[in-house]
Amino acid sequence: MVASLRLPSLAHLFSSPSSAANSNISGRSPVTLRRRFHGLFLRPWPLAAGFAAQSPAAETQGGIDSLKNRVPDQVITPRSQDFNAWYLDVIANAELADYGPVRGTMVIRPYGYAIWESIQEYLNVKFKETGHSNMYFPQFIPYSFIEKEASHVEGFSPELALVTIGGGKELEEKLVVRPTSETIVNHMFTQWIHSYRDLPLLINQWANVTRWEMRTKPFVRTLEFLWQEGHTAHATPVEAENEARQMIDIYTRFAYEQAAIPVIAGRKSKVETFAGAYKTYTIEAMMGDQKALQAGTSHNLGQNFSRAFGTQCSFTKCKFVQFTDENGQRQHVWQTSWAISTRFVGGIIMTHGDDAGLMLPPKLAPTQGVPLRIEIGPRDLSSGSVVISRRDVPGKQGKAFGISVEPSILEAYVKDKLNEIQSSLLEKAIAFRDSNIVDVNSYDDLKVAISEGKWARGPWSASDEDEIKVKEETGATIRCFPFEQPEGDKKCLMTGNPAKEVAIFAKSY
Amino acid sequence: MVASLRLPSLAHLFSSPSSAANSNISGRSPVTLRRRFHGLFLRPWPLAAGFAAQSPAAETQGGIDSLKNRVPDQVITPRSQDFNAWYLDVIANAELADYGPVRGTMVIRPYGYAIWESIQEYLNVKFKETGHSNMYFPQFIPYSFIEKEASHVEGFSPELALVTIGGGKELEEKLVVRPTSETIVNHMFTQWIHSYRDLPLLINQWANVTRWEMRTKPFVRTLEFLWQEGHTAHATPVEAENEARQMIDIYTRFAYEQAAIPVIAGRKSKVETFAGAYKTYTIEAMMGDQKALQAGTSHNLGQNFSRAFGTQCSFTKCKFVQFTDENGQRQHVWQTSWAISTRFVGGIIMTHGDDAGLMLPPKLAPTQGVPLRIEIGPRDLSSGSVVISRRDVPGKQGKAFGISVEPSILEAYVKDKLNEIQSSLLEKAIAFRDSNIVDVNSYDDLKVAISEGKWARGPWSASDEDEIKVKEETGATIRCFPFEQPEGDKKCLMTGNPAKEVAIFAKSY
Repeated sequence: MVASLRLPSLAHLFSSPSSAANSNISGRSPVTLRRRFHGLFLRPWPLAAGFAAQSPAAETQGGIDSLKNRVPDQVITPRSQDFNAWYLDVIANAELADYGPVRGTMVIRPYGYAIWESIQEYLNVKFKETGHSNMYFPQFIPYSFIEKEASHVEGFSPELALVTIGGGKELEEKLVVRPTSETIVNHMFTQWIHSYRDLPLLINQWANVTRWEMRTKPFVRTLEFLWQEGHTAHATPVEAENEARQMIDIYTRFAYEQAAIPVIAGRKSKVETFAGAYKTYTIEAMMGDQKALQAGTSHNLGQNFSRAFGTQCSFTKCKFVQFTDENGQRQHVWQTSWAISTRFVGGIIMTHGDDAGLMLPPKLAPTQGVPLRIEIGPRDLSSGSVVISRRDVPGKQGKAFGISVEPSILEAYVKDKLNEIQSSLLEKAIAFRDSNIVDVNSYDDLKVAISEGKWARGPWSASDEDEIKVKEETGATIRCFPFEQPEGDKKCLMTGNPAKEVAIFAKSY
Repeated sequence: MVASLRLPSLAHLFSSPSSAANSNISGRSPVTLRRRFHGLFLRPWPLAAGFAAQSPAAETQGGIDSLKNRVPDQVITPRSQDFNAWYLDVIANAELADYGPVRGTMVIRPYGYAIWESIQEYLNVKFKETGHSNMYFPQFIPYSFIEKEASHVEGFSPELALVTIGGGKELEEKLVVRPTSETIVNHMFTQWIHSYRDLPLLINQWANVTRWEMRTKPFVRTLEFLWQEGHTAHATPVEAENEARQMIDIYTRFAYEQAAIPVIAGRKSKVETFAGAYKTYTIEAMMGDQKALQAGTSHNLGQNFSRAFGTQCSFTKCKFVQFTDENGQRQHVWQTSWAISTRFVGGIIMTHGDDAGLMLPPKLAPTQGVPLRIEIGPRDLSSGSVVISRRDVPGKQGKAFGISVEPSILEAYVKDKLNEIQSSLLEKAIAFRDSNIVDVNSYDDLKVAISEGKWARGPWSASDEDEIKVKEETGATIRCFPFEQPEGDKKCLMTGNPAKEVAIFAKSY
């Protein structure tokens, strides 16, 4: 029972180091054991430092490398003073990540990785429940594949890492280290899809991907990152659309219910749509500095990739992604892809963290000792009771004294408090989000809102050129046309023409 | 209860497609549902074909590409006729994997990947129980790192894939796509280890690695493969040795108890030791063609890497992997690394498979419908009973008729049978292994044994040169000096000199 809360048995806290060392959760030695418990329960927030010094091989460039200027002590820059410095301090102090030796790369340390494992555990079950199978595609993609879908190559070619030497020899064709897998997936789909009976084909992979980003920031944007990428093929456009919507719904529920992040789900503008997609759905999260973070996306790819891989085919026996429908005619399949990455860990930090450091929603905390701290003094040891402090409520107000260590009482108390913390974090984030979204009806209103660091929500039916002008003049982009739309007639904030939808504009990561 | 056996509820088999479609295990449509059940229960072995045709981008070279010559039908080459063709047929027919577009790469398909997930689930728990934390290191390693440990660079440099272009620009320093992570791990360890209080440091990562192999074979040897790699640092050589032995023991138990593969665990000869290690421990498995497969290794690295990364240090404030011991002196740490990869899936296929195709040990079967087949006819539907067939016992002998579908009866029956199959597969594999190991006391004996396709076990204390001569003359290498040694005085089979240990010689993958 207690184990289901990811809480080591409290009995160990009251036993001698040598007997505890024989338990499941012990390390190798009493020393390890003490350090482990110290880490989980007894150390004050923020978590211990021991921060890495500068790497000799790291280049001094990009946000990720400014991690190295963080000093190895417990001091965290106040959030209000310098949000970026605060973010890097939190990561350093909680030992979530460290920079790698290559510019823009990141080492995900055990505590940071455990948060990612919590995310994986939840989503992996949801993906399987909705009929998807995990598999694995090679990460090396022939360069020619990337060139097959016109907007895809335009979007990704500036960010590619290329392998040109293998086994000591110059390769005949350069290999792309996957930035995403649509092309290689379609290459394989051509071989697996022959008939409508092979559809829907629903797969997912957990993998690393590489994008040669110039401005990097731990978790948020790194040269290499971890993610899941789902890829599906369907017989009809309606099925593909339903799939893309289903997956953004799963991400939305995950964000609200597990991460306590009140994302706004919606559709991307054409300008912001994924390179190669027909439509992109997104969940947008407001960070503590009011900037938007694109926290997950789901693409309805239409037939863009299936046509690209088909139209390039020059063989007599065609093997492109198309199938025989029930009437015996051949047509291209309809596809989706969708992804969430280690960036989400950055989103959690920047949504819930405060001046004291990292704050995790209980449902994603690797050890649920962390949102709640259990304090044990010499008097507690004799009375069989503990003090329990809430991470999210500072000072005496967040403390409960004299909680019995009798397992059923303690477990019920802890469960109850964890639920309370989870709800409270979400409510607080919703209140923060809503107080920072401004409804606007003119471009002037929009400019004021953005200059004040707010999100601007207003009717929009203007051109791509107008959208780009807003970006150039204010730094804000359309984050999405939210699924939840106000009723009634609307007029475009830019042109005054009728508008069907409101869009949300914001500065973003 | 039934779910714990990874068996979909049998009730669904007796319900209409529309009601079953609402269940957890359903796909999107009755069509998917029928295909799904068909796959799990009702299709005859071997699993359905639908094998991929030739890839236009694949080069015709290496074993992995000969997969493409397998025909898309149910025919499996008899194992006795051509073991390699049989192996490729089994993989194609069971849809475990397909070749990728780049020579030597492999796409792991859902059923093959699910076997890997079963392996991961078991080992991941064992690693955490023994105090290891998962984390993630970047896959790009500066080329200069590889050169720091002399035997490491000698071993790996012919197999490297190199990234030379990033973001459209030629890189100043080539990046190695990790073939293994000892170098980058040590680079980071220098920053995290300052004192004996930071030890032991016990970490693991699940990752992809790249080795530019010329002769490839699905699962067994591919350009890119998936594995876990553990890396640890300790204060004393005894601790490092205990760790290396503990991990090979975990692999051994996994092989016996989960995979029903009776591996022989032992120490590698100096010639066969991992590039950069002080000692390598291994588990060696006998495949169906009597060739040996190195199925997992655990290395005691001594101080090789900690010294390599230390001695290169040219900074005033040294950051190499060393720590202050309790006496205040500084010394280098003692390290281990250990790994199991997707190669193990190949080992399972080649240990248990037969002329009918894939045979999986129940404890690793993604769905425990597969070692047992449940057959339902129209008469069964009315009588509420099923026929259960064992995959490992052909014909009527393996069938049990009239098994009630009453959940408690069916579950008990299935559990019992699965245990019986698991034990029976292990016993059969032990008998096969033992009947193919020959004790030899002279080089002539050894040559005869090897020429007959057997493993030769005999006393060995000869030189590295003699060991290399055996390889050149017979094709066999020392697979290991087994931990289990016969007692009594022994004389080296090659030189007649006293020998402390017997070694096992065999041809290998």
